[in-house]
Amino acid sequence: MPDQIDRTLPIELKASLTSGSDTWHSTGAPGVVRPFLLADGPHGVRRQREGGDALGIGNSVPATCFPPAVALGSTWDPALVRRVGEALAEEAAALEVDVLLGPGMNLKRSPLGGRNFEYFSEDPHLTGRLAAAYVEGIQAGGVGACVKHFAVNNQETDRMRVSAEVDQRALHEVYLRAFEHVVRTARPAMVMSAYNRINGVPASEDPWLLTRVLREEWGFDGVVVSDWGAVDDRVAALRAGLDLEMPPTGTDDEVVAAVERGELAESALDAVVERLRRLEARLGGAKEPVSEQELAAIRDRNTDLAREAAARSAVLLANDGVLPLDRSSRTSVAVIGEFARTPRFQGGGSSRIVPTGVSSALDALTARLGTDVVRFAPGYAVDGSGDEALARAAVEAAGAARVAVVFLGLPEHAESEGFDRTTIDLPADQVGLLEQVAAVAPRVVVVLSNGGVVSVARWQHHANAILEGWLLGQAGGEATADLLLGDRAPSGKLAETIPLRLADHPSYPTFPGVDGVSVYGESVHVGYRHFDAADRPVAFPFGHGLTYTRFEYSDLRVVEQAENTWEVAFSVTNTGDRDGREVAQLYVGPAEGQQPTRPRAELRGFAALDLRPGETATVTLPLTAAELQTWDARGQRWTVLPGDYAVRVGASSRDVRLRATVHSDGDRVLAPLTAQSTIAEWQADPAGQQVLAALLGRVSLAGRASSVAPELVRMFLSIPLDKLRSFGLGVTAATVADLVAQAQARQEELIAAGTYRRP
Amino acid sequence: MPDQIDRTLPIELKASLTSGSDTWHSTGAPGVVRPFLLADGPHGVRRQREGGDALGIGNSVPATCFPPAVALGSTWDPALVRRVGEALAEEAAALEVDVLLGPGMNLKRSPLGGRNFEYFSEDPHLTGRLAAAYVEGIQAGGVGACVKHFAVNNQETDRMRVSAEVDQRALHEVYLRAFEHVVRTARPAMVMSAYNRINGVPASEDPWLLTRVLREEWGFDGVVVSDWGAVDDRVAALRAGLDLEMPPTGTDDEVVAAVERGELAESALDAVVERLRRLEARLGGAKEPVSEQELAAIRDRNTDLAREAAARSAVLLANDGVLPLDRSSRTSVAVIGEFARTPRFQGGGSSRIVPTGVSSALDALTARLGTDVVRFAPGYAVDGSGDEALARAAVEAAGAARVAVVFLGLPEHAESEGFDRTTIDLPADQVGLLEQVAAVAPRVVVVLSNGGVVSVARWQHHANAILEGWLLGQAGGEATADLLLGDRAPSGKLAETIPLRLADHPSYPTFPGVDGVSVYGESVHVGYRHFDAADRPVAFPFGHGLTYTRFEYSDLRVVEQAENTWEVAFSVTNTGDRDGREVAQLYVGPAEGQQPTRPRAELRGFAALDLRPGETATVTLPLTAAELQTWDARGQRWTVLPGDYAVRVGASSRDVRLRATVHSDGDRVLAPLTAQSTIAEWQADPAGQQVLAALLGRVSLAGRASSVAPELVRMFLSIPLDKLRSFGLGVTAATVADLVAQAQARQEELIAAGTYRRP
Repeated sequence: MPDQIDRTLPIELKASLTSGSDTWHSTGAPGVVRPFLLADGPHGVRRQREGGDALGIGNSVPATCFPPAVALGSTWDPALVRRVGEALAEEAAALEVDVLLGPGMNLKRSPLGGRNFEYFSEDPHLTGRLAAAYVEGIQAGGVGACVKHFAVNNQETDRMRVSAEVDQRALHEVYLRAFEHVVRTARPAMVMSAYNRINGVPASEDPWLLTRVLREEWGFDGVVVSDWGAVDDRVAALRAGLDLEMPPTGTDDEVVAAVERGELAESALDAVVERLRRLEARLGGAKEPVSEQELAAIRDRNTDLAREAAARSAVLLANDGVLPLDRSSRTSVAVIGEFARTPRFQGGGSSRIVPTGVSSALDALTARLGTDVVRFAPGYAVDGSGDEALARAAVEAAGAARVAVVFLGLPEHAESEGFDRTTIDLPADQVGLLEQVAAVAPRVVVVLSNGGVVSVARWQHHANAILEGWLLGQAGGEATADLLLGDRAPSGKLAETIPLRLADHPSYPTFPGVDGVSVYGESVHVGYRHFDAADRPVAFPFGHGLTYTRFEYSDLRVVEQAENTWEVAFSVTNTGDRDGREVAQLYVGPAEGQQPTRPRAELRGFAALDLRPGETATVTLPLTAAELQTWDARGQRWTVLPGDYAVRVGASSRDVRLRATVHSDGDRVLAPLTAQSTIAEWQADPAGQQVLAALLGRVSLAGRASSVAPELVRMFLSIPLDKLRSFGLGVTAATVADLVAQAQARQEELIAAGTYRRP
Repeated sequence: MPDQIDRTLPIELKASLTSGSDTWHSTGAPGVVRPFLLADGPHGVRRQREGGDALGIGNSVPATCFPPAVALGSTWDPALVRRVGEALAEEAAALEVDVLLGPGMNLKRSPLGGRNFEYFSEDPHLTGRLAAAYVEGIQAGGVGACVKHFAVNNQETDRMRVSAEVDQRALHEVYLRAFEHVVRTARPAMVMSAYNRINGVPASEDPWLLTRVLREEWGFDGVVVSDWGAVDDRVAALRAGLDLEMPPTGTDDEVVAAVERGELAESALDAVVERLRRLEARLGGAKEPVSEQELAAIRDRNTDLAREAAARSAVLLANDGVLPLDRSSRTSVAVIGEFARTPRFQGGGSSRIVPTGVSSALDALTARLGTDVVRFAPGYAVDGSGDEALARAAVEAAGAARVAVVFLGLPEHAESEGFDRTTIDLPADQVGLLEQVAAVAPRVVVVLSNGGVVSVARWQHHANAILEGWLLGQAGGEATADLLLGDRAPSGKLAETIPLRLADHPSYPTFPGVDGVSVYGESVHVGYRHFDAADRPVAFPFGHGLTYTRFEYSDLRVVEQAENTWEVAFSVTNTGDRDGREVAQLYVGPAEGQQPTRPRAELRGFAALDLRPGETATVTLPLTAAELQTWDARGQRWTVLPGDYAVRVGASSRDVRLRATVHSDGDRVLAPLTAQSTIAEWQADPAGQQVLAALLGRVSLAGRASSVAPELVRMFLSIPLDKLRSFGLGVTAATVADLVAQAQARQEELIAAGTYRRP
């Protein structure tokens, strides 16, 4: 905050700058700061037109619809995501947009999350890397990025009131971790505060979240804007560190009154003004509109990129060799399913844009294979209103073809911002159709269109191949044809687990909560962390994805470079007969059985490798204290625990190809010993052990212990030092205070000697 | 609290009464209140002798060792448990004990809980009924009972510091529910406050827990005593409503100083004195010791009762007909396993008593079958130090016998107060022995001795029958022989689920927590509630238990008697050819799919029926609002939600024999509508709907909605009324305030008309 209050500006003016002037503009003041135009759109620019429906959605200037985050998450390709960001920025700037409200980067806590299609992954490492690339790309184009929704906004149910009840470890290790990475490395222009509460405190009014963590710990120097309508109490929000209420609620007078009553420091308003000015300095003057011709050229280029990104996004879940489709025979292909003709390519809600043009897989396949080869049958109606004749025609087409490509997926009304799903099943009529088709078709390829995970367990045995297409943006039809025909090879990897059953998911028993309380009961065991901890089978694991060639992993070397710093190197060889991309993954966790409440393995690095047949690449990934550390809730700090760590390299979280173990001595931090530290903790500390030895000798415990049952010794070790006062051993409050002082002095000596560190 | 301060007693005296005079006595003051002698011992009187080991355990006057709570929990027999309580009281009084520190009644959140052997069940209904009977029995004998450990003390790991992080629903519906039942119905003399924290607040210093809930809501009028050494801050504890610190820490002067500084109301001390005097009035004068002869007679009677209780406690998990053992043939029985000779009959820690005599199953079987029939081989050493020769001899014995009865279990050092287990497996050497024995023995019966659940999945196929004997007290050997030989029929039912794997358990990923934080992530889904919600298979379900005959259930009638009050009646017939006891169980839950975060079915009633062959009994169980209600965390009250409820009657939680559905209109309570209530909540309220109709007409939403996608309508409904101010619909703070006032007025009318109720 500024040291001095800026007396040159009236309080009223400063107050007005802390809210929008309309739904999409921040307030400007001549000579102070210019207004900024904000626009929705992680996966495309949603430049709102005047009017629109009751919620302000549905009427926007056409824009390129890139694959939403659910799809980009599966690329595991920060370079590609960065290019998408740059393209978005170019299009945004052309539409005079200053800040694009994206990327969305909340974690997928539950597969039911209604907005999962706007988020990247169930893993914070992957989310952080992709979101940072997104931000960097947007901002390289001179447009501000706004990461959202900060924080722990993992459900739509009751989202404007619900409190996410989440422990400090899960908060730091999972839910805040990706945001931290992006803020520290990509420096987004804005952060959007979420609708929900975290442990009872509204995110938009939480000084711990918006000031202590975001600004003080992570060094964020941009503008915090509220999610649209998130602010209940503007004064509390300003006090907490929120800069900009959107949209305006016409309550500037309340802010002024609070300053005049002394309930809000005027310097809080000055801080907002300073941050807005800093944003202007970063973004420069107002954007210039471009000509229709220039805009058209941008859109053409962006459609090509959208197609490339879509092809990288689809995940080949299973394939017995039916893919790529055999084009030589020119035998018939039955294309089945309304989604082949009417693609689902983005989700509902505030991110929904008007695309500049949409390709369907049916058109793309027909154009490339010819009308004599492709026979189409819709099979079902997307809204479930289809009749038996539709299915019959599809079965007939399938029976007459060499291969049936069946497009299945979720209808628009099944998933959207604003509500969560209650099932991960595909519509029953679609599954029924697949069963009928599979009974007559020689070979079946299933292509899925869905924003949130759908279960495959009930029907996957009917499919010779499954291509998970997510929502692929406006060029998804062409991209799907590219992949099915082998013009491109699939390379996506799952950014989230596909469970066998919804009930297997860690969030199942508590999601989405009741009465405004959502208990994050699985703690740090989000997604694959849970399935691994519980040794539970899944349909397809996190990180899984096939392509049209094969890879071998070899030659793992883990070389220590400094204290708690290693270089992990290994080789990957394309042993098949086609070009292909492999995303090699590095997982790290404590060696077996050491910390049962800690995840067994966590993604800590990855690399995408494009390899020709026979080609070998060597990958080098860093492994540092940052990858080993856990949040110490007692000491309120990151800590590296001493012990052995398992290093696993592989093609998915469950397809581990190479293993090694490294040993860490931990961070050698001496935590303060107190009266509340247990006997075991005193014994484990080099200073405490020495100091306590004298006491234990004095009370002759050692002598007694030999005759005491081992279970009683264990019980004794778990007792906090101070509790010895209750045990008739002559220990008083003064004894305890003396021991604590002695231990502290001895710790200081050890730290001074350089053997140990201060917290 | 007293209205006036008692000036007749010095503050110093009153302060001294709020702590013990030594480890086992409260402080007395002539003419004010007498001292009370307290003694450990839920399952037997642990009257401490002078001296003892460092923790004061291990040297006590011999007493009858009844089956611990883990065993009594499986009886599902409050009448029997009450008799055990009476017997305990008689023995306690004879030893001059005023208050027996029991029963322990925490829920078994995890099978790893080190003290699970001291607790009854994973279910609060069963725990509440059995604990109430225990208290009633003890107190009928003129001795005070002290229920413990209040509250949420479900683990031993870091128990003196750990914070149980548990949501309000789980707290009320699961963890406090049994305590509430006992306090309300059995009026225990004392409640013992727990070591742990609940959501950060130490249980012994929590005014919400000890005063608001315990005294004000539940009407507790007894004395709150701390667990031994639980008090860190006596002043905070007294302020919170704790009466008696045990053992004394010699800090009375701190209490006096706090009163003198005005930090502690003197009336808080007067309240303690008043409660101690009330306790004296209940318990009468000091107990008179009895003669050695009388004591011997009491112990003899109590040993008989201990045997009866033990026989009722064992649970016959599986039986292909091998049990009861065939005595007619007089062919040989191999009795295998050290536990047959050296029984494990109680757990470690403060509840451990010196028994008056112990029977072994080996002696009992040998006495009844004869030395020519029984051949014994220890097979393993309890401490795991056994060698191959031991196992070889056992296999030889098994091969030569018609049936091998193999005693397996957990060694003493595996489970105790003071630490939690880390596995539910039996020792590997014992399982190895069983496999070898099963390979040669014609038939195998496994008898288990364990305080916490052990997994059976790996070896259960080797056994023709499994008798889960838990820890059966000092007469367990005779009782086991009774059951194996058919002199009595098993009738125990599982009071906790036996999972297939530890990792399947809901507490698995978060138990016992780290850094002093234990996240109760499964929320209300404790034990079978989780396995049912997740449709997960188990080894043996909650409520399961076989006997030597069969039962049929018929003729379920659910008759409504008043609003939210039904009578559930059904018949049970013994269709086998032996006398037997069935424990019929009533489970109630919302009908399918209504509230996914609510347990599907919860135990709400049970009845033990002793039936001769061919005999039919009719059972009548009440079903009232108390059985349907859930905790409304938003309204902070119990509520009955409207809807259909499934009523299930059966022989276990998964052996449902009879089903019915009842409909409840709910409690027809009109919760206040506020600016924070969502549009959907306004629409669902009869008053809100009318009031909102005018607004919705005015903003023409109805008109627009017809052209709006259904997902946007759903999004709109989830918005709190106040948020409409952000949507440009002309809604201001004044509009909202007016709507709230109108709704309140309309609600008052509906309540006045008798159609609805006030919260």
